[in-house]
Amino acid sequence: MKVAFTSDNIAGASDSVWQAMMKASQGDAMPYGNDDTTAEVTTMLSALFECDVDVFLVSTGTAANVLSISAMTPPWGSVLCHSESHLLNDESTAPEFYTGGARFVGIGGADAKIDPVMLKKMVNQKVGDVHSCQPSAVSISQVTEVGSVYSLEELRAITHVSKEAGLLVHMDGARFANALLSLDCTPAQMTWKAGVDIVSFGATKNGTMAAEAIVVFNKTLSKELGFRRKRGGHLHSKMRLLSSQMKAYLTDDLWRKNAAHANAMMALLQAGLATISSVKINTPAQANMLFCTLPEGMAEYLLAAGFAFYGGRWEKGVVRLVTSFRTPQEGVEAFIDCARQFEAGTDQG
Amino acid sequence: MKVAFTSDNIAGASDSVWQAMMKASQGDAMPYGNDDTTAEVTTMLSALFECDVDVFLVSTGTAANVLSISAMTPPWGSVLCHSESHLLNDESTAPEFYTGGARFVGIGGADAKIDPVMLKKMVNQKVGDVHSCQPSAVSISQVTEVGSVYSLEELRAITHVSKEAGLLVHMDGARFANALLSLDCTPAQMTWKAGVDIVSFGATKNGTMAAEAIVVFNKTLSKELGFRRKRGGHLHSKMRLLSSQMKAYLTDDLWRKNAAHANAMMALLQAGLATISSVKINTPAQANMLFCTLPEGMAEYLLAAGFAFYGGRWEKGVVRLVTSFRTPQEGVEAFIDCARQFEAGTDQG
Amino acid sequence: MKVAFTSDNIAGASDSVWQAMMKASQGDAMPYGNDDTTAEVTTMLSALFECDVDVFLVSTGTAANVLSISAMTPPWGSVLCHSESHLLNDESTAPEFYTGGARFVGIGGADAKIDPVMLKKMVNQKVGDVHSCQPSAVSISQVTEVGSVYSLEELRAITHVSKEAGLLVHMDGARFANALLSLDCTPAQMTWKAGVDIVSFGATKNGTMAAEAIVVFNKTLSKELGFRRKRGGHLHSKMRLLSSQMKAYLTDDLWRKNAAHANAMMALLQAGLATISSVKINTPAQANMLFCTLPEGMAEYLLAAGFAFYGGRWEKGVVRLVTSFRTPQEGVEAFIDCARQFEAGTDQG
Amino acid sequence: MKVAFTSDNIAGASDSVWQAMMKASQGDAMPYGNDDTTAEVTTMLSALFECDVDVFLVSTGTAANVLSISAMTPPWGSVLCHSESHLLNDESTAPEFYTGGARFVGIGGADAKIDPVMLKKMVNQKVGDVHSCQPSAVSISQVTEVGSVYSLEELRAITHVSKEAGLLVHMDGARFANALLSLDCTPAQMTWKAGVDIVSFGATKNGTMAAEAIVVFNKTLSKELGFRRKRGGHLHSKMRLLSSQMKAYLTDDLWRKNAAHANAMMALLQAGLATISSVKINTPAQANMLFCTLPEGMAEYLLAAGFAFYGGRWEKGVVRLVTSFRTPQEGVEAFIDCARQFEAGTDQG
Repeated sequence: MKVAFTSDNIAGASDSVWQAMMKASQGDAMPYGNDDTTAEVTTMLSALFECDVDVFLVSTGTAANVLSISAMTPPWGSVLCHSESHLLNDESTAPEFYTGGARFVGIGGADAKIDPVMLKKMVNQKVGDVHSCQPSAVSISQVTEVGSVYSLEELRAITHVSKEAGLLVHMDGARFANALLSLDCTPAQMTWKAGVDIVSFGATKNGTMAAEAIVVFNKTLSKELGFRRKRGGHLHSKMRLLSSQMKAYLTDDLWRKNAAHANAMMALLQAGLATISSVKINTPAQANMLFCTLPEGMAEYLLAAGFAFYGGRWEKGVVRLVTSFRTPQEGVEAFIDCARQFEAGTDQG
Repeated sequence: MKVAFTSDNIAGASDSVWQAMMKASQGDAMPYGNDDTTAEVTTMLSALFECDVDVFLVSTGTAANVLSISAMTPPWGSVLCHSESHLLNDESTAPEFYTGGARFVGIGGADAKIDPVMLKKMVNQKVGDVHSCQPSAVSISQVTEVGSVYSLEELRAITHVSKEAGLLVHMDGARFANALLSLDCTPAQMTWKAGVDIVSFGATKNGTMAAEAIVVFNKTLSKELGFRRKRGGHLHSKMRLLSSQMKAYLTDDLWRKNAAHANAMMALLQAGLATISSVKINTPAQANMLFCTLPEGMAEYLLAAGFAFYGGRWEKGVVRLVTSFRTPQEGVEAFIDCARQFEAGTDQG
Repeated sequence: MKVAFTSDNIAGASDSVWQAMMKASQGDAMPYGNDDTTAEVTTMLSALFECDVDVFLVSTGTAANVLSISAMTPPWGSVLCHSESHLLNDESTAPEFYTGGARFVGIGGADAKIDPVMLKKMVNQKVGDVHSCQPSAVSISQVTEVGSVYSLEELRAITHVSKEAGLLVHMDGARFANALLSLDCTPAQMTWKAGVDIVSFGATKNGTMAAEAIVVFNKTLSKELGFRRKRGGHLHSKMRLLSSQMKAYLTDDLWRKNAAHANAMMALLQAGLATISSVKINTPAQANMLFCTLPEGMAEYLLAAGFAFYGGRWEKGVVRLVTSFRTPQEGVEAFIDCARQFEAGTDQG
Repeated sequence: MKVAFTSDNIAGASDSVWQAMMKASQGDAMPYGNDDTTAEVTTMLSALFECDVDVFLVSTGTAANVLSISAMTPPWGSVLCHSESHLLNDESTAPEFYTGGARFVGIGGADAKIDPVMLKKMVNQKVGDVHSCQPSAVSISQVTEVGSVYSLEELRAITHVSKEAGLLVHMDGARFANALLSLDCTPAQMTWKAGVDIVSFGATKNGTMAAEAIVVFNKTLSKELGFRRKRGGHLHSKMRLLSSQMKAYLTDDLWRKNAAHANAMMALLQAGLATISSVKINTPAQANMLFCTLPEGMAEYLLAAGFAFYGGRWEKGVVRLVTSFRTPQEGVEAFIDCARQFEAGTDQG
């Protein structure tokens, strides 16, 4: 069974999401979020996060991230994020566009996690100096771009440094569910209780069609988000068809079940690869993404066998493997078998 | 039967659209438009428009409009559109945002159609003068905001003035299908053959869930649109779920059938209202939208009876009625009956 | 004596301004406004305005206007100003650029003065509606673009409407001194006592080389102006050479003397033209600018005689005449004589 | 004699500059650059650069830099410059503001010079990938932020890499004259002959009051600069008062003489400090700026003696010394003597 590990965005949406959308599609509903389902989603997310939140639904992760951050920095501010973050590397200049030209500054740290010591140096840099961009916000990716997950302690270390210096904190939760299950904590613990002001609560990669929630804990930031969403062209007229996705995602623990499957498949994959001595695990996968280094020829062998994944973008031999809510266990096993065959073959050779 | 005439965005999506999306959701597909369905949509739209077009799918009409226009004007340019246009009145400051701060200038004209004589005065205004914004593009709404439809001659008069002065032409086709059926011409005739460079080919109001196509005839404008869509946060990862909507919309003439129904219902509604002497048709509906003035008390009577529509936003007594691909004929008839009852009642009083 | 009435920006700077700059040029001084003269200017302007003001010096009037306004509106806001204002007609898209894409809306009114009744309709329009730009600020030109001057009552009528609706008020005082002398009131009366939050206190047209002061009465708006000035590229390194201009301008009533001369020359000019029956005064000049309509042939006659002024931009026959702090009385008289000669000549013909 | 080495922007302007401005101030002149002096400056700069150039005068170095670059990159582009460059560190977010939100990326390299090998890696990064900012321009500071000067070979290495990849090249010449004299080459050799498309030809630090010239060699970039300057608020009405500064600066080799003096004073200063064993020259000064490390206590000793310079912003003990066209030789000698006294004192102690 040949499967693709290229990304979790190659899968479609879960069945119950489709059922919910189709049901919502019947009858009329007021547009632009003035419908019952949209209100219901806010209630559900408030319950989930144990906090009275404001919610702004959009259809892409980039929109969720940059809209959130645009409410956190003036155009002369700087936003600190990891140098390898999606925000800095994969969203074109959407960050600059939406913030009216703020500066996005990469911070280092192992495993694509912001190093709080490096962060501390930057948050206080040239504050009040009109010649320099003013540190205004920090954005944390949870899961990170290399598949690691910040522990609650690590999160709090970063938010502590940020808050002390008066910076706001955004969490890019494109893979929120995968991270949460990995930490086995509550959504509240991983967000506002850890000092997060807004989270981009991702759902698209984990089973919806195209639905992301900007969940605002620090409600002083909410007022302008409605205007910003509209002027960004991200206010859907048939909003209930976004809301119904999110509602289905939150119903009957679909979001947890989907993420649990993806994480389990990754655990299986990682465990299997760990038994193959020529494969090097670069960053231990804590959720549903793994970076590892394959021996020469193995990637080509696997690709030739019909598997799919990204390579060739990083150091020699490095590949990225991502599992999703729909990755079949047989596919994972087949992949490991195939890698093992390659190793056996080259051993003999 | 109580129906709502508030807008065509209160309906859901057509069944075949849902079927197509669910089918597309199965199996994996490359993200961000690198899938077969997205390519197929370009082919279908090229066939439809009898022209080799570039296509950029997005999920909102505002995004389609402002992205299109952002490729047509420098930040120091001006974009001319009707003073009553959606662009100027209902898209917040998305136009300024996406163009990097161009000026949007309202032009007058009866029935919300740009007057070519007034336009001509503006297109040559202060050209080359650094103190003044530079006329760069014209945006035409077809159907207009009051439900009228430009004839091909009217379109050509505007594009002629525009082209002579070196301006590019955008068409806001949020209700493209409704206009086309009203004119009974080909898509090519209503667009590039009439001098249009880019059309926002709307589908959401006419049967898809959330899918609009930026269709580019003047392909010199295409290159930057890919970058602009991404930095606007409008590049969907699961693009095939947009594409499949558009594909279904274009398949088996769904788009024409849906618009034909909406237009027919409006024709019925208008004909019925025309028989009620106290009702004044403000702008004859040429597609699926009508503005009329009701006698005192009639709006309240209809609303109390369970019908829905917008009023109170314009001159005293003016209401807007919009039909959609799902408006039931019984509902239209019931509405007319109810209005007639009101008239009869007040006559007796 | 042939003089030019094209604009008050064709003159150079007053002698005492040059002396002050040259003196300030000696010795070293800390850059970017951290010098004594800059502090002194703030003290002088605070005294002048009888109010503890913040001051931001820049070198152009456009910069003063758009920086001031950028602190008064969010990017999704609208700024209301007269349709004939400099801001809307002569500053390219600087307003949109500096505000991050706010909308600038023209309001009507006789003599290029905002009509408070028309304003009232606009300030409350669609407040809270994310689809529409949000009325945020009003900008008043004092002197207006046609040479009229708002009375204190007229100013207060506008600021009253604005404040009631929660809008901030900016005054474009490119010809502040000319207006003030015309009204014969105090600077405080014409600004903060009348409800103005920030004034662009112009000096360049009235005797400095290139120096304008953003004078902030509503100090909650000050904080961001320092950052905005820098990112606009308007923070001069050798700031004392701007400050010394402003200091000289404010010393020994230079600013009043210069404006008094300009206004007196215009009064003379207007009085003279009023005696020529074929000349029509369009808007009575209240400061140093006049729009009048000349009979056919007179403009050409005057231009041929060596006088200079703008015409041909407005209705047929309309010309603009501007006097400055350096306009010689003989020049004014010669102009009137020349016009009279023309009339006499055509009478005989 | 106590002198300040804080910056070359603490000095005033040269006498002949003042004489020229005062002369230009007499009589009337057309505004906004439509005067003879402005035209003359273009002619003079064309002669100086042995090339038919376009010239845009502005009054600050930040404006010159960011306007130049704004014509070289789309908003989704990236501009590569040294991590220590003024552009990245001292101009707030003006770069993002003027480019409509492009990304500014720091490149490493010794002595604040871009390393062409590192540059080469970046210029081809993710070209055509809509998810990533697109390398569009390179900005080189000549003199660099640490006082080093690129040799012609070094310049050509960078422009070669840039041009091969299709990137445009900007030179930040805030200290152009100081660099030129250091290299002893022609202005043409250091700019367009070396592959530079636009230079910010600085004059303010070297003897004018506030005048910088954007000199455009690649004239395809010129057209939009006029519009961009205006919308940035940088088009001076009394332009001749900028032009006359630049004309005086270019007349009788004032610019070379001034820079020669500043460079000579730095050479003297550096030579003197080199004889004091406890002082470490960090980057050998090639123009008029020097970074050196003073032994503990020496900076305080010099400051207490009345000298001025910046320290405390970099590594421990590091200070920056800048000479200008007006730095007196006695002051340099006094500084060296004072440093020597300190060393003698601490030796004895």
